[in-house]
Amino acid sequence: MKQKIGFIGLGSLGTPIALNLLESGYPLVVYNRTLSKTAPLKEKGAEVSQSVAALAAQCEVVLSIVSDDKALRLICEGEGGLLSHLPKGSLHISLSTILPRTAEDLAASHGEKKLQYLAAPVFGRPEAAVVRKLNYVISGEGSARTRATPILKDSGGMNVFDYGDMITAANTVKLCGNFLIASALEAIGESIQLARKSGIDPHQMWGMFTQTLFNNPVYAGYSQIILKEQFEPAAFSMKLGLKDINLVLQQATSADQNMPLASLIHQKMDQLVRDGKENIDWAAFSLEGS
Amino acid sequence: MKQKIGFIGLGSLGTPIALNLLESGYPLVVYNRTLSKTAPLKEKGAEVSQSVAALAAQCEVVLSIVSDDKALRLICEGEGGLLSHLPKGSLHISLSTILPRTAEDLAASHGEKKLQYLAAPVFGRPEAAVVRKLNYVISGEGSARTRATPILKDSGGMNVFDYGDMITAANTVKLCGNFLIASALEAIGESIQLARKSGIDPHQMWGMFTQTLFNNPVYAGYSQIILKEQFEPAAFSMKLGLKDINLVLQQATSADQNMPLASLIHQKMDQLVRDGKENIDWAAFSLEGS
Repeated sequence: MKQKIGFIGLGSLGTPIALNLLESGYPLVVYNRTLSKTAPLKEKGAEVSQSVAALAAQCEVVLSIVSDDKALRLICEGEGGLLSHLPKGSLHISLSTILPRTAEDLAASHGEKKLQYLAAPVFGRPEAAVVRKLNYVISGEGSARTRATPILKDSGGMNVFDYGDMITAANTVKLCGNFLIASALEAIGESIQLARKSGIDPHQMWGMFTQTLFNNPVYAGYSQIILKEQFEPAAFSMKLGLKDINLVLQQATSADQNMPLASLIHQKMDQLVRDGKENIDWAAFSLEGS
Repeated sequence: MKQKIGFIGLGSLGTPIALNLLESGYPLVVYNRTLSKTAPLKEKGAEVSQSVAALAAQCEVVLSIVSDDKALRLICEGEGGLLSHLPKGSLHISLSTILPRTAEDLAASHGEKKLQYLAAPVFGRPEAAVVRKLNYVISGEGSARTRATPILKDSGGMNVFDYGDMITAANTVKLCGNFLIASALEAIGESIQLARKSGIDPHQMWGMFTQTLFNNPVYAGYSQIILKEQFEPAAFSMKLGLKDINLVLQQATSADQNMPLASLIHQKMDQLVRDGKENIDWAAFSLEGS
């Protein structure tokens, strides 16, 4: 029998990851702020917990994937949070995309309570989770990395990339990755508009590019979404995209770096969110303002 | 015996393409403004012509690949140019990266002289030409496309993508492609700087990205160049990069489109050329200004 695992955060990516763990044979206790989202897990045999505290009290390993730094701090440091309720020696594997500095703070506050905090952000859309092709990036204490690796593989991780001891490393890499994807979106969008306004069929052009210069899944998938302007339902929302690009710019500021392309992307996304487009797919920003 | 072909422009890409034609069994007459560059072709059996006019007089098919719109107009419309000297019915296959509007003008002026002009810009670095992995994009009259396709394949074209009758199509697609590569460079450069300034090893990060999210030759090749700052000798110079991005912006203007990312790239490249860096690899712009 595998060890019991606690799982917090059943969003579009959290749900298939939690289902993978169940399928891999881990007894699972799940918690989600909106209770209705626990139904698919309950159906497959997970125990549903009514509070983080109740979940924490019975798990030595907890995975969490929540929407932002604030939500993560709340489930850790809030009243009834993990820090007050996890048994000593427990491991918190944190999958959320957050500021590296937040990971550093949380590693420290976990340490004070004799708990381990591992930064383990994840690359992959929900569809990739279902077919177990996620890429995890981890950093933190050596023993936490060793402990977490087989669990992350069982949760759908095709790869677990180890960035060593420095707790901030994994979240920095994740922010770089999301920035690179957003940059590809902007480039795809501008190229589609230029082709279209020049009287060229952008579908034919992108059929060619994804077969030659840009034959990889990011370009193949997103060029189709942008060509067809299929922005609803969102696979990844503008609101979450803006959150991530905000984190990129915050990290750039603390590293004393100019990122003109990140700033450009931020400006376009921010405008769309102000215009009430927060729930459409983030790829839509690439067609704005042209 | 295959038909005799004229070849104008023995730069870093023109030379391996011309060598492929020779190797494929075409008798070749070559012309280059700087005579010394004809030596490798002469050595392999090509006839060297002292003028465009002398070359044109003996060929029914001419390929040209020159540095810019002005150079191309000169070899076509100048005194002693192709328009005055090619036999009626000849085909000019034009590989240069130029403004779509220039292709339109040249197709018209060739037509007036009962000559065919085919737009056939090419994707691929010199190394790709050597191993016959170029990608051609063609547009123009149907009979010109039919006539040129086997020759382009024999010149190292792994693929010849046919964009139909509209003469401007191929050069528009080529500009979109170069814009997309330049955009990838900017994104790679900003991500490397962010990782480095955040204390992360950017080599490890890019080893991961080129194995996962960005597993394709553009990202694999250029991330290495930017990581190592190997900008000399240039595989593709800043001067040529700036020329291409200028064409992208000119095309955007005539298509009444804003391209904020193209403008950002232009600004950075332009500054470097003003600073005398015109001969280093164009990838260097991505690290500037951060």
